[in-house]
Amino acid sequence: MNEALTSLQKRNNQQLDHWLNHLPNQQLSLIKAMRYGLLLGGKRARPFLVYITGQMLGCRLEDLDTPASAIECVHAYSLIHDDLPAMDDDELRRGQATCHIKFDEATAILTGDALQTLAFTILAEGALSDDGEQQRIKMIQMLAEASGAQGMCLGQALDLAAENRSVTLEELEHIHRNKTGALMRCAIRLGALAAGEKGVEVLPQLDRYANAIGLAFQVQDDILDIISDTQTLGKPQGSDEQLHKSTYPALLGLEGAMDKAHTLLQEALQALEAIPYNTEYLEAFARYVIERKN
Amino acid sequence: MNEALTSLQKRNNQQLDHWLNHLPNQQLSLIKAMRYGLLLGGKRARPFLVYITGQMLGCRLEDLDTPASAIECVHAYSLIHDDLPAMDDDELRRGQATCHIKFDEATAILTGDALQTLAFTILAEGALSDDGEQQRIKMIQMLAEASGAQGMCLGQALDLAAENRSVTLEELEHIHRNKTGALMRCAIRLGALAAGEKGVEVLPQLDRYANAIGLAFQVQDDILDIISDTQTLGKPQGSDEQLHKSTYPALLGLEGAMDKAHTLLQEALQALEAIPYNTEYLEAFARYVIERKN
Repeated sequence: MNEALTSLQKRNNQQLDHWLNHLPNQQLSLIKAMRYGLLLGGKRARPFLVYITGQMLGCRLEDLDTPASAIECVHAYSLIHDDLPAMDDDELRRGQATCHIKFDEATAILTGDALQTLAFTILAEGALSDDGEQQRIKMIQMLAEASGAQGMCLGQALDLAAENRSVTLEELEHIHRNKTGALMRCAIRLGALAAGEKGVEVLPQLDRYANAIGLAFQVQDDILDIISDTQTLGKPQGSDEQLHKSTYPALLGLEGAMDKAHTLLQEALQALEAIPYNTEYLEAFARYVIERKN
Repeated sequence: MNEALTSLQKRNNQQLDHWLNHLPNQQLSLIKAMRYGLLLGGKRARPFLVYITGQMLGCRLEDLDTPASAIECVHAYSLIHDDLPAMDDDELRRGQATCHIKFDEATAILTGDALQTLAFTILAEGALSDDGEQQRIKMIQMLAEASGAQGMCLGQALDLAAENRSVTLEELEHIHRNKTGALMRCAIRLGALAAGEKGVEVLPQLDRYANAIGLAFQVQDDILDIISDTQTLGKPQGSDEQLHKSTYPALLGLEGAMDKAHTLLQEALQALEAIPYNTEYLEAFARYVIERKN
């Protein structure tokens, strides 16, 4: 799994680099900041999910490069905007200065904007298997739905609205199913979509898997914010508490949150059992989600 | 022309309202702020250009609603982000409090993000003439190119980089051809694209027209910033000077800038002469661009 992750990370980085090289004015702060936000560090979890889901269903890697690159652009833009002073006000991300610290706030806002646009350029122009243009439009629709006011942006808005007040476990799940979950689910759906009919057949199982690992990812993030350290995390440890954010450990206790993560892992593995393909990588990814240290 | 503008503004507002009504969580600040930024005031110049270009070439209005709505979402998002404290720091827009004043900065950032996403949802899902899916993808590609790091965001970045230093007339044109021009040109191209083959034939003339009025629009904006008043403008008069922005009047003098606007109008009208359709509305729009008071 680690080998596959490293190799697909590298592939995704090359793709993203290629798209950035296409842009004019490479010396402009905007383009430098896009490169900085997109290529410096990061796990590439979403592209990885696109690749391993699509591959499991028989796709070639080159048919998955386009959705993998597009979804990483959306993720990168969301991190840059989330780190802004008016949002989470973070100075460290992936062990580096955040975009508005390295450049400036105006550049960081524009960089996020332009990375979101790039995601749609990539989906509109990038290579895809020759299943016709229907697939391309469906991918654009899916990514937009997962990113905007029905998905990631909604989750972020719900999260902001929940700061400094206590929320129920149900509310917290609703926040994270949108904030983190929507894009993870989208990554898996994009991989399935690239596989055509085969993907449609296993979509309900894949969605169940995605919902479980999306939430588990956030639970583990909350746990790491408490038990890890700034160097390992690459971002300030303890920032949830400082921002008075509702978290799983705050609601369930640290041990309760760890139990929750394990329950979600079991749910994810159960969903995979009903899929008649080689789910080895998806299984390994699910374990990685709750075992990772950063 | 005023009648047509009012009627198409109304049509566009109804369309945008329809898209907003589709979103969940209508009571959330995010959705309220999207509605505020998208529907409160505004000239709807870009949707108008989509409509009158497409109509001139024989399109039905209902085949133009989708690109007209999408481009207005991009324009609205760009205004919300441009007004942010880290950017132009404006408190007044269209005679109303700017989004971050009415709501808060975090909400304004997210609102702009979600409006950009909505533009692509609209293009991916909205009704279009039945010229097939190629047209839809081409529209998405065009809007992304005009909005991102090769268009509007590039212009905005160049504008930021030019603050507090003097630029040449050539540099200023380069900034505005991207910052304002790219989206205006895109509006006209979207209208032409909706018309299929007919649109392709007159695209060079339409591009010439678009380049001239895009620049004229900015020259007139710069002039109005000096000679108008805050109430008429709906935004603070004199803000260019306060931000030490390079403007046409600063480079050419007020009279020189007015001459420039008239020369651009002549260029636009000349481009229209070579178009074998009824260019009445495009002509009226070109005159409106440099005669408008806000």
